[in-house]
Amino acid sequence: MDANQLWQRYQDLLCDCGDLGIALDVSRVPFGDDFMHGMEQPIQQAYDAMTRLEAGEIANPDEGRMVGHYWLRDAALSPNETIAKDITKTLKGIKQFAKKVHEGKTAPQKAKKFTDILQVGIGGSALGPQLVADCLGTSKDKMRVHFLDNTDPDGIARTLKSLRSKLKSTLVLVVSKSGGTPETRNGMLETEAAYKKAGLKFGRHAVAVTGEGSRLDDYAKKGKWLKRFPMWDWVGGRTSVMSAVGLLPAVLQGLDIDAMLDGAAEMDRLTRERDTRRNPAAMLALMWHFETGGKGLKDMVMLPYKDRLLLLSRYLQQLIMESLGKELDLGGNQVNQGIAVYGNKGSTDQHAYVQQLRDGLNNFFATFLVVLQDNALANKPEKKALQVEPGVTSGDYLSGFWQGTRSALYESGRSSLTLTLNQLDTRTLGAVIALYERATGLYAELVNINAYHQPGVEAGKKAAGVVLDIQSKLLGKLAEDKKTAYTADELAEAIGSPESVETVFHILEHRAANKHGVTKKDGRYRVS
Amino acid sequence: MDANQLWQRYQDLLCDCGDLGIALDVSRVPFGDDFMHGMEQPIQQAYDAMTRLEAGEIANPDEGRMVGHYWLRDAALSPNETIAKDITKTLKGIKQFAKKVHEGKTAPQKAKKFTDILQVGIGGSALGPQLVADCLGTSKDKMRVHFLDNTDPDGIARTLKSLRSKLKSTLVLVVSKSGGTPETRNGMLETEAAYKKAGLKFGRHAVAVTGEGSRLDDYAKKGKWLKRFPMWDWVGGRTSVMSAVGLLPAVLQGLDIDAMLDGAAEMDRLTRERDTRRNPAAMLALMWHFETGGKGLKDMVMLPYKDRLLLLSRYLQQLIMESLGKELDLGGNQVNQGIAVYGNKGSTDQHAYVQQLRDGLNNFFATFLVVLQDNALANKPEKKALQVEPGVTSGDYLSGFWQGTRSALYESGRSSLTLTLNQLDTRTLGAVIALYERATGLYAELVNINAYHQPGVEAGKKAAGVVLDIQSKLLGKLAEDKKTAYTADELAEAIGSPESVETVFHILEHRAANKHGVTKKDGRYRVS
Repeated sequence: MDANQLWQRYQDLLCDCGDLGIALDVSRVPFGDDFMHGMEQPIQQAYDAMTRLEAGEIANPDEGRMVGHYWLRDAALSPNETIAKDITKTLKGIKQFAKKVHEGKTAPQKAKKFTDILQVGIGGSALGPQLVADCLGTSKDKMRVHFLDNTDPDGIARTLKSLRSKLKSTLVLVVSKSGGTPETRNGMLETEAAYKKAGLKFGRHAVAVTGEGSRLDDYAKKGKWLKRFPMWDWVGGRTSVMSAVGLLPAVLQGLDIDAMLDGAAEMDRLTRERDTRRNPAAMLALMWHFETGGKGLKDMVMLPYKDRLLLLSRYLQQLIMESLGKELDLGGNQVNQGIAVYGNKGSTDQHAYVQQLRDGLNNFFATFLVVLQDNALANKPEKKALQVEPGVTSGDYLSGFWQGTRSALYESGRSSLTLTLNQLDTRTLGAVIALYERATGLYAELVNINAYHQPGVEAGKKAAGVVLDIQSKLLGKLAEDKKTAYTADELAEAIGSPESVETVFHILEHRAANKHGVTKKDGRYRVS
Repeated sequence: MDANQLWQRYQDLLCDCGDLGIALDVSRVPFGDDFMHGMEQPIQQAYDAMTRLEAGEIANPDEGRMVGHYWLRDAALSPNETIAKDITKTLKGIKQFAKKVHEGKTAPQKAKKFTDILQVGIGGSALGPQLVADCLGTSKDKMRVHFLDNTDPDGIARTLKSLRSKLKSTLVLVVSKSGGTPETRNGMLETEAAYKKAGLKFGRHAVAVTGEGSRLDDYAKKGKWLKRFPMWDWVGGRTSVMSAVGLLPAVLQGLDIDAMLDGAAEMDRLTRERDTRRNPAAMLALMWHFETGGKGLKDMVMLPYKDRLLLLSRYLQQLIMESLGKELDLGGNQVNQGIAVYGNKGSTDQHAYVQQLRDGLNNFFATFLVVLQDNALANKPEKKALQVEPGVTSGDYLSGFWQGTRSALYESGRSSLTLTLNQLDTRTLGAVIALYERATGLYAELVNINAYHQPGVEAGKKAAGVVLDIQSKLLGKLAEDKKTAYTADELAEAIGSPESVETVFHILEHRAANKHGVTKKDGRYRVS
């Protein structure tokens, strides 16, 4: 296609979200009318499915759950009064709590005011809040947000050390929907121990966000924590950023959560559109389908040209891969679906892997995110931008690099989408998140999978449990006879699990390296 | 294979780096003896090529350059006296400079001592230093390192704002091999403007790392900067972390750069081994080849189970994708090579995309990085690790999650490698970097490509230049006639580039959004 045909295609296909200041350009994906005609019936069925989902159907059949993240930004859409009230009441509670914290009415034990937040959570309980905090944070934030998102003792110690002098004014948010996520439980226990060591009562600095009646909920109740906020079984972790999971740290940080909810609600309205070419979420889902053959044949590379959007790729990596990466379809057929997602930011990535995108393997399609207003979060545009060359700003370069890369990819037969945001602010971020949530949901319908469960994650927890069970037996055996040194094979035999010998070996190596109950000499292990 | 066969396979194939405390496990890649036999001749040829490369052959023919990053850690290997002296002299100079900075003998204009470092660089001038600083940083660091790695005006402003109160004690390292990288130039100019605004002479806070005689070198000379360190044309950006690019910020931070160089040199020695099964770099390269068919058919997922290694995946993404992602082979045939690399850290990623790895699309192989000693950078192991359950630590969980995920992937037919580090410290990190450098070099030989150029990056700069040229003409045209408002089509016509109309449109949209020389009304643009 020559440049003028492309320009016509750009104008014809541009999917504009009007007032939100967001526009999706699909002109550099080489689909034709035939593709759109062929997909019209499936996408109409996908709209129907989303309508039923939003009306409260059990859209997550494996877990027998409704899927209600869309209600979070418009409680009136809830399928019943109870849910509507829960949403409204929780939102109000979050704001009231934050107000008290900001005013110092809810104060820590040994300081006047809370100054910092430590959110302890993993997966959906971390990625959304991390994106929001980093994307929208400024020097004027009311509180600073930190995270523990793993069970790495060194990583935990490092974060707690960095907070040491501020522990007494740090508010800890422990976030686990199930209340039983081991990484989060461990992070919480390590944090609690640090408070204890500092002579501080943990409960006077702690808030729980979890399912009612969960283990964490009980623990918080017994420990007289400051507050408990609910998580509901109809909100999945990866779509929980607009529940208490994400709203609580955001409002404490000082962000305008109403704007975020409003942006998401507006995008929800726009993406219920059944005229497909006017529905940006449907167009996204269809482009993914076109590019990957509906089978994940290509990777999705996310390239936001804005430092503040660095974590968006990681956020979408979870949203899309955990939703779409499934073994079985809804009919129980083995399909091994998914789309691999990766990326960091432009133009930085142009000096990293974009070499491969331009010249190498054509196994991807790119999504550019462009922000027109250079000065993010500014109500007024920067008037005195520095001229790095006569008449040229750093922002002109950033924009030029995006255009250059987009053209070069097109010229070498690589597809790209561009999502342009007029400005980057709380409302727009809410809308972008909603856009991708809907696109993921629609795509899942197109390929007939359950986007709302994560059986592999449960399996992962179980597999780790098996390892820890073996560890327990192993340490028990070693303790029985303190003088004997065993090989890994002998120990596996001795605990009645000869087939677990490699697991036994790795456990022993880890314990011995930490001089933790085990010593190693000449390939034999004994209790230390 | 049953568990006992796997255990035997693990022991038979383990590739141990002895004293370095690093071991590569390839037992969960289902290759057989036939594969190893078939690859023996190609890998022997690859060793030969690496020998010639290390001896100073022009291993980067397109650019007519030698490839000498291996000499950086053992100057005695240099192909001539001049290079050996350059390496030794520069290393000495770096240490002397850092000593003076630490002692306050090289001091800023209006403060007693430098406390912070701002490294301005992109691609290879940022990713390695970022990895090193984050992986090895502690609360005892002598200086804190910050980065500008893009031309995003908002991102630059945000970083400079966070340094505002410390600007007078911040040492700026401007790093660009060519001295002409626009992102770095822009970051430098914005930083210089901030110093000027603060009433500080930039030159008294600035150091250049660049090729001798480059534009940056001249600029630093004229501006009477504190110091200039050389970059040589025989060191590529993505392998420059052990040149002044990475060593200077590392030693300023207080890291033991001799240990890093020593670890790398030791790994270099081990990976010159021609008995393939004992050479971890060769085994890595061969596993990549087996898994991807020598054509990048699968993605490489990096999963370090250690928070401090979070940036390793991004570092390796550049090293591997920029090296291997090439259109042409050394014979000039179109091959479109490459391997896509992504990942963050475990077990965190188990709650993100590992759902897809376990259950979904089988289009990847995983590389686990495991650190046996839980307490990174500690000379003594943690004796009082918290028990999160009776007899169980956070680190036991981390280790259990790795084992669980490795088993589960194997059971569902997904391949994985595991690189185990006894401990994580400066020496080990140097060795891991050297291991991947050599593996990348060997793989490139196996598929017959030049791993040391990046033609696509140059093309990217050129494409952006075209956009900026059009912008300049456009603004000129608008300024000629301040009253007329044009459509994008009319303006493209007017500047004699009707085929560039879409580029014209995007430039105008960007400028109008920033109220920067252009205003838009009813789809028409005029000068503002």
